Amino acid sequence: MNPLAKSLNEVIKENNPHILEMLSDTGREIFMPKGILSQSAEAKVKATKFNATIGISTEKGEPMYLMSMFKKFQGIHPKKLFTYAPATGLPELRELWAAKIKSENPSLQNIQISNPVVCNALTNGLVTSGELFLNKGDFVVLPDKFWGNYRLMFSTLIGAEIATYETFNENNGYNVDGFLKTVKECGIKNKKVFVVLNFPNNPTGYTLTKDEAVQLSDGLVDIAESGINVIAVTDDAYFGLFFDDVLKESLFSMLAGRSKRLLAVKIDGITKESFAWGFRVGFITFGETFKGDNSALFKALETKAAGYLRATISSAPHPSQSITVDVLKEPSFKTERSRLNAVIEERCKKVKSIFDKGLYADEFTPYPFNSGYFMCIKLKNVEAETLRLALLDKYGIGVISTNQTDIRIAFSSVDVENIEELYSVIYQCCKSLTA
Amino acid sequence: MNPLAKSLNEVIKENNPHILEMLSDTGREIFMPKGILSQSAEAKVKATKFNATIGISTEKGEPMYLMSMFKKFQGIHPKKLFTYAPATGLPELRELWAAKIKSENPSLQNIQISNPVVCNALTNGLVTSGELFLNKGDFVVLPDKFWGNYRLMFSTLIGAEIATYETFNENNGYNVDGFLKTVKECGIKNKKVFVVLNFPNNPTGYTLTKDEAVQLSDGLVDIAESGINVIAVTDDAYFGLFFDDVLKESLFSMLAGRSKRLLAVKIDGITKESFAWGFRVGFITFGETFKGDNSALFKALETKAAGYLRATISSAPHPSQSITVDVLKEPSFKTERSRLNAVIEERCKKVKSIFDKGLYADEFTPYPFNSGYFMCIKLKNVEAETLRLALLDKYGIGVISTNQTDIRIAFSSVDVENIEELYSVIYQCCKSLTA
Repeated sequence: MNPLAKSLNEVIKENNPHILEMLSDTGREIFMPKGILSQSAEAKVKATKFNATIGISTEKGEPMYLMSMFKKFQGIHPKKLFTYAPATGLPELRELWAAKIKSENPSLQNIQISNPVVCNALTNGLVTSGELFLNKGDFVVLPDKFWGNYRLMFSTLIGAEIATYETFNENNGYNVDGFLKTVKECGIKNKKVFVVLNFPNNPTGYTLTKDEAVQLSDGLVDIAESGINVIAVTDDAYFGLFFDDVLKESLFSMLAGRSKRLLAVKIDGITKESFAWGFRVGFITFGETFKGDNSALFKALETKAAGYLRATISSAPHPSQSITVDVLKEPSFKTERSRLNAVIEERCKKVKSIFDKGLYADEFTPYPFNSGYFMCIKLKNVEAETLRLALLDKYGIGVISTNQTDIRIAFSSVDVENIEELYSVIYQCCKSLTA
Repeated sequence: MNPLAKSLNEVIKENNPHILEMLSDTGREIFMPKGILSQSAEAKVKATKFNATIGISTEKGEPMYLMSMFKKFQGIHPKKLFTYAPATGLPELRELWAAKIKSENPSLQNIQISNPVVCNALTNGLVTSGELFLNKGDFVVLPDKFWGNYRLMFSTLIGAEIATYETFNENNGYNVDGFLKTVKECGIKNKKVFVVLNFPNNPTGYTLTKDEAVQLSDGLVDIAESGINVIAVTDDAYFGLFFDDVLKESLFSMLAGRSKRLLAVKIDGITKESFAWGFRVGFITFGETFKGDNSALFKALETKAAGYLRATISSAPHPSQSITVDVLKEPSFKTERSRLNAVIEERCKKVKSIFDKGLYADEFTPYPFNSGYFMCIKLKNVEAETLRLALLDKYGIGVISTNQTDIRIAFSSVDVENIEELYSVIYQCCKSLTA
């Protein structure tokens, strides 16, 4: 094992030995090489005369660049576009994002969080946490309605076992009991369990109520305190898109600082919540696991994440990061976001109003939804793929079939004035298929 | 194994069974899920009325976005910035890049190459090829002067064994014999070997002469034809920065289409050669392995790469890709690049002229160099780290110490008028340390 990896592991062990137990083989082996990067960092400060360490090319101290690239931007310096961002991301971006997390999750006020590590958006953050904490055969607990890419990253790529529970209970609430039962069963098998908590959820558009969130987080803490190491990853992709009386913070804030055996890992980013899907800016943030100063442990975990990122992407895109820095400092940022959120909220409420009227119940019923981009319906008489193809071929309407009975509908991409017609056509199409 | 993975493997086996033998466990298991992505692709074509498949949010068919982000750009449509790029990259970018590879590597004229797959720059391309083709314990053959990140990705992350050979021979040429000997030794051990060929090289700034390139590629073909599966990855990061009478094509063009047991994989991108380090746009391209139509095999390999990218980054940054598309179509692209290349070339020649005069030979001598961003000197009397720190502290000069005796100097980041002084100060500093 590399001495730098060993020394990170020692820091982790000294601060909280359970975190070392949680690390995968990759998580233990990985480190951030010093070599060229640390020598360049020293030179950045001290090489005031000539700096011949840099892995880019410069003229008179400024990066060289093609004018045909630069002319696509405005109001931003070439240094903030063309040069490499650090493997962990721009320091200012990390600082701004930490402040944003704190301000949007007030329950974190007295809870320590790590410096967010910048990654290539949420997929990259999720797979980083998977690689750091999952060995082949370890359990990942997911609801049975989950984003398909979880399977590819956690199961196909990493080789972990996916254990699912039914997403909703018979009262149309979240199946917290089923979740906790599955976590316990998996945890008992190998004293360690990795759970992904994705609210607002893709594909259902469901976010926990406050009561459910309390029950879920308390239950998870109990499991951890019973001696099972729990890695609780919150996939907060759709954060902020809350359209009902639900928990309006990340579950992360109810899991961080609760148990030495419970590591909360927050994965979030600008992708969905700031309408910048193609920018590829996400963050990995670790929560406090014990009373007292967590900073050495955080630093070690950030360095582990940085090592994985260095080995796989080197760094996230610099233009996207620089623009995000500027946007986060814009006074209009919140109001712009609110305006767009309100557009999506209006659509969500419109969909709700249709089902509140009890329409279409002989052909389909909605799964609970209150947030995010999507909602799902459960079909009663028609096979989902059959309906999907019929909608596409006969009506020019695109929906997603997620299994035999379920259809996912993105109200995020249907204007409010078309929503009634959309559901009415889906109903007609069901009828025509059962006629 | 997922049926989609199985069917990709069957296509690979039917077309060239040796490629299937080359794949790692991950390479065999990985696939590109259909599900949501393929349903969305169908809807993109057919959902002319409402498209409720999309994982973004739209208003009147256009992506929503924050004006405070969009105002940082000019002359580019929001659709080309904010939406997701496909996992394999923008189709137009792939097409343009394939054409660029063909035109800049004329020997490829009659050789088939795959459609380049877009990734998060060269690190990401290298690790993708590593994950697809390397199991724990497989051999990666590298020169003893190599980019440190290779160790992190191939050894620490993937668990492969690194086997090195001395980079240069006693005649100050490339140690092709040593390379081939090492490849053969490793190949005999497990019938498979993964080699990385990085020219212009980081850290030495060396590119093969044409004769060396012929000897190396012929030797590698012989090894493959002897029954050893060879994955030959060319890391063409510094492509185009050739400042002497060297091979001015990628070695890829001398390896593709040579043997059924030799898979050439080209990793390149805009990072260094187009002065866009922070943009994170790279490419993975596979070379022909047999006479006849390679397209089904290429498609399967592209899909394997896409699966790995989907599971780890989802997609590369869209703004960077769109801007690259536009730049590649700019008539000024070549001349802009040539102008900047000429600036670096002038510096390289200036450094050469110093050593041609026989200066400083009592303290250090250069390793061979003729290309790229860097050159290395070998110290005779002073320890490299001692010199590095003294240069930094006493003279404000930053260089990289790569081992006990060697210093890497980036002429890419020192203006030509400062080069004489730079080397003269390094010499003085050596003298002061040995005094």
